[in-house]
Amino acid sequence: MEKTMEKIQALAKARGFIYPGSEIYGGLANTWDYGNLGVELKNNVKQAWWQKFIRENKYNVGIDCAILMNPQTWVASGHLGSFSDPLMDCKECHERFRADQLIEKFAEENSIALDGSVDGWSNEKMQAFISEHSVPCPTCGKHNFTDIRQFNLMFKTFQGVTEDAKNTVYLRPETAQGIFVNFKNVQRTSRKKIPFGIGQVGKSFRNEITPGNFTFRTREFEQMELEFFCEPDTDLEWFAYWKDFCINWLQTLGIKPDEMRVRDHDKEELSFYSKATSDIEFLFPFGWGELWGIADRTNYDLSRHAETSGEDMSYFDDTKNEKYIPYVIEPSLGADRVTLAFLCSAYDEEELEGGDVRTVMHFHPAIAPVKIGVLPLSKKLGEQAEKIYETLSKTYNCEYDDRGNIGKRYRRQDEIGTPYCITYDFDSEEDGAVTVRDRDTMEQERIKIEDLPKYFEGKFTF
Amino acid sequence: MEKTMEKIQALAKARGFIYPGSEIYGGLANTWDYGNLGVELKNNVKQAWWQKFIRENKYNVGIDCAILMNPQTWVASGHLGSFSDPLMDCKECHERFRADQLIEKFAEENSIALDGSVDGWSNEKMQAFISEHSVPCPTCGKHNFTDIRQFNLMFKTFQGVTEDAKNTVYLRPETAQGIFVNFKNVQRTSRKKIPFGIGQVGKSFRNEITPGNFTFRTREFEQMELEFFCEPDTDLEWFAYWKDFCINWLQTLGIKPDEMRVRDHDKEELSFYSKATSDIEFLFPFGWGELWGIADRTNYDLSRHAETSGEDMSYFDDTKNEKYIPYVIEPSLGADRVTLAFLCSAYDEEELEGGDVRTVMHFHPAIAPVKIGVLPLSKKLGEQAEKIYETLSKTYNCEYDDRGNIGKRYRRQDEIGTPYCITYDFDSEEDGAVTVRDRDTMEQERIKIEDLPKYFEGKFTF
Repeated sequence: MEKTMEKIQALAKARGFIYPGSEIYGGLANTWDYGNLGVELKNNVKQAWWQKFIRENKYNVGIDCAILMNPQTWVASGHLGSFSDPLMDCKECHERFRADQLIEKFAEENSIALDGSVDGWSNEKMQAFISEHSVPCPTCGKHNFTDIRQFNLMFKTFQGVTEDAKNTVYLRPETAQGIFVNFKNVQRTSRKKIPFGIGQVGKSFRNEITPGNFTFRTREFEQMELEFFCEPDTDLEWFAYWKDFCINWLQTLGIKPDEMRVRDHDKEELSFYSKATSDIEFLFPFGWGELWGIADRTNYDLSRHAETSGEDMSYFDDTKNEKYIPYVIEPSLGADRVTLAFLCSAYDEEELEGGDVRTVMHFHPAIAPVKIGVLPLSKKLGEQAEKIYETLSKTYNCEYDDRGNIGKRYRRQDEIGTPYCITYDFDSEEDGAVTVRDRDTMEQERIKIEDLPKYFEGKFTF
Repeated sequence: MEKTMEKIQALAKARGFIYPGSEIYGGLANTWDYGNLGVELKNNVKQAWWQKFIRENKYNVGIDCAILMNPQTWVASGHLGSFSDPLMDCKECHERFRADQLIEKFAEENSIALDGSVDGWSNEKMQAFISEHSVPCPTCGKHNFTDIRQFNLMFKTFQGVTEDAKNTVYLRPETAQGIFVNFKNVQRTSRKKIPFGIGQVGKSFRNEITPGNFTFRTREFEQMELEFFCEPDTDLEWFAYWKDFCINWLQTLGIKPDEMRVRDHDKEELSFYSKATSDIEFLFPFGWGELWGIADRTNYDLSRHAETSGEDMSYFDDTKNEKYIPYVIEPSLGADRVTLAFLCSAYDEEELEGGDVRTVMHFHPAIAPVKIGVLPLSKKLGEQAEKIYETLSKTYNCEYDDRGNIGKRYRRQDEIGTPYCITYDFDSEEDGAVTVRDRDTMEQERIKIEDLPKYFEGKFTF
């Protein structure tokens, strides 16, 4: 079976996982809307993260901060100063490019070994490379570029009635800073002691020049970030702990070991303040892509906020009778990306006996958008089947489907990844039992209606 | 007991429900962050809405659209043309006012009967009133205002690398339009037939001139909106149905009948396209405030999008063999407002025997941020108590607290509204049982540890 983005995107649209945003108006530059199944899938993914990282984890608590923050936040974090892409125009055809991407592509095509990641190069170094190698415009082939200038990736807006510098605010480019500015508040109200973590799920915005690959890179996106505060010198242990924890979360929810890899950053690639960083990557149909960045950020962020705000961001450790600014481990995951990874991982086409092919989404039951399909064999059997649907709907997201032949209805539930289908048939009236079909094995069991709640108990946890 | 906003706001900050946003930088104009308990409370409220309006409701499905939409959306909806506040400056003291609010306040203070709501007045009518009655500047008392100009309430930003009209996009001022533009997509992928509804929970942004009253009116806020599509001429029946449904939802979750009222809009107050509108209001400590607007919007929105986009937004009704643009009932609820209402409603100070006062939050167990407190009587008993905490944390948000005397720990759990506390004491080692204390009655029961899951079953549903 060939698994392509085209197939996955087509199924996502046809079945109600993900539609193009503002579609009736011709869309809006790589925005996407989650449909009736997509919203359930993504909510399940977010809840699965919250369950394991916050609710069940004795170290961590949650928070939910405003998207609009005081702009001093972005002075402290460095986003106002240096969160930018290097842009360049072709003076001949007026096409615009990211200089770093242009260089990387040129080097790859011409087998030129690069001196580390272009990410860290200065404008001057990029400009020098381009003229030295006569890198041409990929669109028109000419060699007449403007100088490189840095373009800040934060979305800017105005709060209040005048559009001036005083009223300029930014849409947050990450949820992490809301956690750092609230470090003291949360420590006080949760009464947690070091080590402890604060997690947040929410939207962030980056004015990317080249969004793309479906929902992999979008300007508006959702993050699930944890900032874990620990004692200095214990940071590398906790870094290892959270790296394992993240890998384990993905694999428990069905990501297969051969679909993922962990890439540890080289010393040269690390941010100047970071002691260690690893990316967990997933093998998408378009290639390896980063899902999760796990970084040892030392005490950089809290120190920066202490300097900029003048507030004391240190912690008094009463077991050691010592004051320090905690070190931070940050596992940062994209909710849209990991939802896309689950969609890609789940997709399968299986050849059945007789040569038929069924498309099936092998979602882990915990994240499957519909848990149970309730299918009366005939519309005449609706009354009793609806009762089963109503009872189970109190606990699980169920779908009721009484249209078309039962084989087609099973196929449809397979395509949306429903782990179990209940068929209420003419025998059910007599024996008070129904057939429960398993999505993956396609095996069927006869279960008493009154035993259904017990049968499903624990089937959707992880 | 006097219930004031000051008390509730102080408790919210002290206990980790809600902090001022960006506090270490002096805040940002009425933004707020939900703390370690607030995020659980608000998430529970959103999930309670989703549970009853989407998951258990056989008519409805959900969706989750991007905040950034194609600007044509706001042309069609009328937000670009007329979603504005009438502003006016005092030329003497340079203070800025909303003309409608100035007039309403002046009329109230001078017992002048107004001709309907000022909301619907033209700029000219407002200007005429101000000069006729010589309305003074409330700040300096002079009579020298600028003309009234309309100030659009949508937040504007720029997508892409140039800040020009072509790249101007808006932060959505409501979630409803994402539902309307996706009407055909969702109908197709959910295979729902009329009547059916589409619900959405998400952030919206309005550049209010005068935000205030804690989280009641903020520029960034979260909505829970349902658009329910029905056959023309059945709309008033469905309007009544959803109004009852909303009232019932609030009361089931603990809002008392004397804390709420339903205000039906007069004919004159209705939008020109609306056949009926009712507001459900809650009695906040600062007065009555709107929680939920329920509106019969007729076929206005779908018709406007059909005109503006050129797409056919009609529905083919195969039972009637007829094509029509569905009518829409919209129950629109503010997630932050209703969370604030639950906070206010739950707040209580009770005089105990002996004259002590306990502060207690009587949250409905379904929305209480912490469901169960696990309190070992002594730190020596930690090992077994932690086991109970770990088991129950799989299902419920629990808090483990082994610090301070047990009476103080009960008080603290009362203040954060924890419905049940489990105390593991020295007898527990012998009898394998614990004491379970009820927040509201303060009664205690002895329960076998192995029976705890069964004991709590169904205690947090609604």
